[in-house]
Amino acid sequence: MRTPPADREATADLLGVLAYGELVAFERLAGDARLAPSLGDRSALAGFAAREYGDFVRLTDHLGALGIDAEWAMGPFVAPMTAFHDSTRPSDWWEGLMKAYVGDGIATDFYREVAALLEPATRDLVVDVLGGTELEEFCVDRLRAGMGAEPGLAGRLALWGRRLVGEAMTQAQHVAVERDGLTRLLVAGLSDVEEISRLLTGVTDRHQERMAALGLSG
Amino acid sequence: MRTPPADREATADLLGVLAYGELVAFERLAGDARLAPSLGDRSALAGFAAREYGDFVRLTDHLGALGIDAEWAMGPFVAPMTAFHDSTRPSDWWEGLMKAYVGDGIATDFYREVAALLEPATRDLVVDVLGGTELEEFCVDRLRAGMGAEPGLAGRLALWGRRLVGEAMTQAQHVAVERDGLTRLLVAGLSDVEEISRLLTGVTDRHQERMAALGLSG
Repeated sequence: MRTPPADREATADLLGVLAYGELVAFERLAGDARLAPSLGDRSALAGFAAREYGDFVRLTDHLGALGIDAEWAMGPFVAPMTAFHDSTRPSDWWEGLMKAYVGDGIATDFYREVAALLEPATRDLVVDVLGGTELEEFCVDRLRAGMGAEPGLAGRLALWGRRLVGEAMTQAQHVAVERDGLTRLLVAGLSDVEEISRLLTGVTDRHQERMAALGLSG
Repeated sequence: MRTPPADREATADLLGVLAYGELVAFERLAGDARLAPSLGDRSALAGFAAREYGDFVRLTDHLGALGIDAEWAMGPFVAPMTAFHDSTRPSDWWEGLMKAYVGDGIATDFYREVAALLEPATRDLVVDVLGGTELEEFCVDRLRAGMGAEPGLAGRLALWGRRLVGEAMTQAQHVAVERDGLTRLLVAGLSDVEEISRLLTGVTDRHQERMAALGLSG
């Protein structure tokens, strides 16, 4: 992997997509909280949502410190992310947890790879923002218990997981076509097609591992 | 006004209704954020929501410190508050802001009066939690601008404001009938019917002032 010069356009893109992603994650978790089967789970999810908002503030503050307007940086990602979320509305508590687990997992893996190609201050912030595993652990715990108690839920969630991946890939392609900054960063930062393919394989492998952690095949 | 002995049941009730109110306010503001006309207003409302979650944590922590189970304390208020919110779903950004402004305003005024009858540690926490005026200022600013720009909005919001008050009063009566702790605290803490009537008049007057601040009659 070569280290490319700090690419302002790519930095704005990555921070923009991440910041907007945190804002949407906040809204989504807050909305899913209402589907919780108990007040305890409901306030737990509200807590995860509040943390996403805190990360949103850190990312937009960092954009501001770089002299980049946060709304401008987030703008290009509003439409594709809205399309993704509109096409994957959870119909119940379990689908919401699965979406948080699978969707955020794939996004985290991918953004972490991209962040590795950026200058240290941005990279460290992104890695730190992406670092928490509490929501993932919460989802796995509740999903496992749910599938143990409700016959048929595992099959339904396996299908739902595949649909989430498919929709995420569709929207990611749209973003890649439209956002030169991110694409050029990947092409410049990765020395050849093999490395790009290794990145994508890594993201896919970790998705399979997450499904396996639930006893499901990806 | 007499100062009654610290009433554990009333304390649990007040902290319970407030904590649950903060959790619901968090969810509601996070949901309303999606209706925002700009990314800036959307993230501002998300910020207010995150703050409500912080207050929720402070209130449930305080319940815990008093040895009172937070879920148990919140339980009695889930049904009436759900009924209130189900019957007053905002249909757009303006109705959401109006609901935050009018509904939270009345609740704040009322809870502040009740808190004055409790022991100092609880009273000070409640007064502090209720103290912020930023959300109120945000609502007034945006609502005034909206009514200035959109003919007919003022009339619609005046009607909506009256409906919010009516629904809030209906649910408050249900709570009063069911929650002896709060009712007895009020009856014990206020020396006579005149003081109770003064409390209610005060809450109503401040509602009229809030409407007047928007150029509307209550």
